[in-house]
Amino acid sequence: MKIDHIAIAVNDVEESAKVYQQALGVDNVEFETIESEGVKVAIIHLDNARVELMQPTNDESPIKKFLDKKGQGLHHMALDTNNIEGEVERMEGCGIQFLGKIRPGSAGTKVTFIHPKSLHGVLTELCSHPKG
Amino acid sequence: MKIDHIAIAVNDVEESAKVYQQALGVDNVEFETIESEGVKVAIIHLDNARVELMQPTNDESPIKKFLDKKGQGLHHMALDTNNIEGEVERMEGCGIQFLGKIRPGSAGTKVTFIHPKSLHGVLTELCSHPKG
Repeated sequence: MKIDHIAIAVNDVEESAKVYQQALGVDNVEFETIESEGVKVAIIHLDNARVELMQPTNDESPIKKFLDKKGQGLHHMALDTNNIEGEVERMEGCGIQFLGKIRPGSAGTKVTFIHPKSLHGVLTELCSHPKG
Repeated sequence: MKIDHIAIAVNDVEESAKVYQQALGVDNVEFETIESEGVKVAIIHLDNARVELMQPTNDESPIKKFLDKKGQGLHHMALDTNNIEGEVERMEGCGIQFLGKIRPGSAGTKVTFIHPKSLHGVLTELCSHPKG
């Protein structure tokens, strides 16, 4: 199990990406729009993991609701596992609750989310990258 | 630059550490009390970085204030650099504001914090581990 990324809700992902790129001294940034989740993402590649900035693409986006309620800031953490099906089964055996089933994420990943009430208020993504 | 840890504010670090250990399937956990910062910390070692759970040790602790205002949840992210003095100087040149000077952290580290208003609401620790 390792940290895959830290996700941050922002109002304007292009402008925020410039600020983060300059602040962190990182050139390696990609943009991706995930219509099914209602977000546009800037992926900032650090040496061992990523920082992801997320802007809502519509008013129904959960990120829009988060921004309206809490403002910009830390949104969730994401943990990478080689075996997401096995981990979900193991965690459910420990009483951990999930938000939805395992589903396709960006770039060939499989993802699901642990309910914040199972981890003391922390929304936690579990993800699995395609092999090879 | 890499992700060093994700820090989470909790009410009871012993109980939370048990939950996180079981949920993440991690045995490697250390506890440390940092009186100068008013926190007791559980350090959960993942493969590439750490999750740190923080409980206030007194009513003046900034973590106590955070919990009273926002409840348990994500508190800050920490980035590891080999050259904290150089990074702070470079970042100040970009207009990034800091909360206090570089100071000793736990286990021989040097730390400082980037003001959340410089990174769209995200309190960000910069840290540097002792060499060798």
